[in-house]
Amino acid sequence: MAEFGDADRQAPLRVGVAGLGNVGATLVRILQKDGAELTRKLGRQLEVVAVAARSRSRDRGIDISGLEWFDDPVALAKWDGIDLFVELIGGEDGPAFAAVKAALEIGRPVVTANKALLAKHGVTLARLAEESGAQLGFEAAVAGGIPVIKTLREGLGTARIAKVFGIMNGTCNYILTRMGNEGISFADCLKDAQALGYAEADPTFDVEGFDTAHKLSILSTLCFGYEIAPDKMRVEGISNITQHDIQVAADLGYKIKLLGIAERTDDGIEQRVHPTFVPKGSAIAGVDGVMNAVALETDHVHELLLAGPGAGGPPTASSVLSDILDIARGTRVPPLGVPSDELLPYREAPHRPHEGGFYIRLSAKDVAGALAAIATRMGEKSISIDSVIQRSDLSAKAVAPDGSPTRTVVMITQQTLESSVREALAQIAADGFIVGEPQLIRIEKL
Amino acid sequence: MAEFGDADRQAPLRVGVAGLGNVGATLVRILQKDGAELTRKLGRQLEVVAVAARSRSRDRGIDISGLEWFDDPVALAKWDGIDLFVELIGGEDGPAFAAVKAALEIGRPVVTANKALLAKHGVTLARLAEESGAQLGFEAAVAGGIPVIKTLREGLGTARIAKVFGIMNGTCNYILTRMGNEGISFADCLKDAQALGYAEADPTFDVEGFDTAHKLSILSTLCFGYEIAPDKMRVEGISNITQHDIQVAADLGYKIKLLGIAERTDDGIEQRVHPTFVPKGSAIAGVDGVMNAVALETDHVHELLLAGPGAGGPPTASSVLSDILDIARGTRVPPLGVPSDELLPYREAPHRPHEGGFYIRLSAKDVAGALAAIATRMGEKSISIDSVIQRSDLSAKAVAPDGSPTRTVVMITQQTLESSVREALAQIAADGFIVGEPQLIRIEKL
Repeated sequence: MAEFGDADRQAPLRVGVAGLGNVGATLVRILQKDGAELTRKLGRQLEVVAVAARSRSRDRGIDISGLEWFDDPVALAKWDGIDLFVELIGGEDGPAFAAVKAALEIGRPVVTANKALLAKHGVTLARLAEESGAQLGFEAAVAGGIPVIKTLREGLGTARIAKVFGIMNGTCNYILTRMGNEGISFADCLKDAQALGYAEADPTFDVEGFDTAHKLSILSTLCFGYEIAPDKMRVEGISNITQHDIQVAADLGYKIKLLGIAERTDDGIEQRVHPTFVPKGSAIAGVDGVMNAVALETDHVHELLLAGPGAGGPPTASSVLSDILDIARGTRVPPLGVPSDELLPYREAPHRPHEGGFYIRLSAKDVAGALAAIATRMGEKSISIDSVIQRSDLSAKAVAPDGSPTRTVVMITQQTLESSVREALAQIAADGFIVGEPQLIRIEKL
Repeated sequence: MAEFGDADRQAPLRVGVAGLGNVGATLVRILQKDGAELTRKLGRQLEVVAVAARSRSRDRGIDISGLEWFDDPVALAKWDGIDLFVELIGGEDGPAFAAVKAALEIGRPVVTANKALLAKHGVTLARLAEESGAQLGFEAAVAGGIPVIKTLREGLGTARIAKVFGIMNGTCNYILTRMGNEGISFADCLKDAQALGYAEADPTFDVEGFDTAHKLSILSTLCFGYEIAPDKMRVEGISNITQHDIQVAADLGYKIKLLGIAERTDDGIEQRVHPTFVPKGSAIAGVDGVMNAVALETDHVHELLLAGPGAGGPPTASSVLSDILDIARGTRVPPLGVPSDELLPYREAPHRPHEGGFYIRLSAKDVAGALAAIATRMGEKSISIDSVIQRSDLSAKAVAPDGSPTRTVVMITQQTLESSVREALAQIAADGFIVGEPQLIRIEKL
């Protein structure tokens, strides 16, 4: 084994950074500012020598005058003046993919924070890395500042993971937290999140759950050893969550969180992203605001929860840097936990009854027999109802298109199949007793 | 850099395990059972070849017939038939220290779960390891199944840690959780914990906070780069916590947890272990039962919380195994995060005002003017009182030694120095208005 201070470790590790947004600029600042401490930690000098970005002149609060400039990230990735390539451009294809591919093809290690790229091309890139002997780090791609990739790849011994779930989108968690604390609507929270820079101008990718789905698919592969399958899951966002849902959840002792959940079953993998009732006292319910959290259930380690900042320049740059340090130290692990040719083809589990039951919110016509008719349809599908709530202070009296008044009905079911609930609701809608779309939220016992 | 599958990686890594208690036996079972998966993960065979323990004949549910047996762990540590020595004997001195020292002296890597050993001899052992080029892993020594050592050593880049705190003793957390959920006394909970094997026959080391102090001192060194100083801290356990304290905490929106807390200040390090009021909605308040949690506050990563099982055979063995895998892969980091000769001498911070304020419970004589006299003494020390509670359902009417009746008075203070509070309480006691020892618990804003 090599000693600290070996001669071959003394050559500085030269880093090229493509993409100088918030994370990229923060990384360059840290590498320039903390150089001495890094050298002390590592026994080797670490130096950013080149950058690529769209605009050379933009003020990013960092001094790039002494660095080699590249307009083309692929040219930087291939340049023989660097030992390690950092991709912080973003996007699942285009220059990010081209540059990462180019670096790995020539055996150059890569660190990226790009979850979309990983979700789409992760297996291809891992294979490339293994073939050329390069390392591929992506700690920052999932849950920004939380070292969940390292924990999955290196921290669990042979513990067999049964389930992974978490809060992986800070925008959604910020919105849900404020809705819960301040009683304001989804739309108002979203507007604030956009003003504060926590949400994009087009928030669809975040609030509809697709970002969570990308991250979950990467974790799922690291946990279960199947190929990455970001499209093999039901994805539901938070844009339909109302104050009524939040308040009923609170009354019942729950908070609503957008969770990504992947489970290993005997018949394959179940992956899903959806708003979820989580018990108020649970550790994950305490993860508020822009914070993220990932929970792992294994045979050996009953449950492990990692919580921290999911985004933001400094935490994300910190994760990128920990990958760089690992590579500089010579740490070698297969990018996806096992060699890519040992990954199993993804196998989707058939639908199963959901243990925790469901929260159902309906806008029912305020006519005699409506509730009885609804209850009958549920009974026909063998769905047991735990409780029905029609609290007057919450029942938003409204009027159906045909002029009849409506009232909000909330039902909590026992363990049942989601398909049974959906079939019952379709039947109830066909009976003409409800107005608009019903709301359906899973309750997790956690 | 070496490739997976290099010829020199093909030689099996031969492991010797000293100490076959719960963790040791579980580790041997995993190494024997999961051999194929380990080889797949590692690209190298991992094999337990020798063991040492007190009794050869004891039934541990594992087959040790094919393994080399040693009565003396030091002889095993030195035996040239192993490549890596695992110490699971326990104890801060004696055979554990002798064996670990013997292995490191000949450059043999060591993995240990022994926090007492690390707290007392960690710097000496780290120096030995660095001198001989051996690795020293101790992931399992702090917070059993939670990968906090790895996160501190490798997962945070150059993030500068400002504060580390956590729940590091499962026995205490189990007792406090049950006291909170079931309204039973400390003594009854302790009896149950002993019956369930969560507490030792002599529980002093756990319930008086010393175990937490050992673990905190190790984390503190990894966080701040000072020498390990387990004796440089105020340590207070949970044996004086009453149902009254638990219930007032609940009424005010808090839970009581035994926390170890270490902070970097401009004037040195502050380390302390004591029961603490933590806000009910916080993530750490959700960490219940035998679970542990460690929270890190850094400049870059605002707050990171790692929660999971703090003890038990499988989680602890899993952490031991992750250290073994790291060593087998050739991962090289200084045991204490930085080379041991760069550790700074420990510097104890002077006492500071405590931001969160204090909870104070007194048994006051039920005489006219008592409360006014108490309030006056607090005022003399410039202590602002947020609220005073004398709830009738909780005031345990009692009788002072002089025959006068007493009632329980609870005060919540604003930010103040602990020394001021203690001085005021001493004065109040001298005035003769209270009976017995006052209870003082810190409130943390977290």
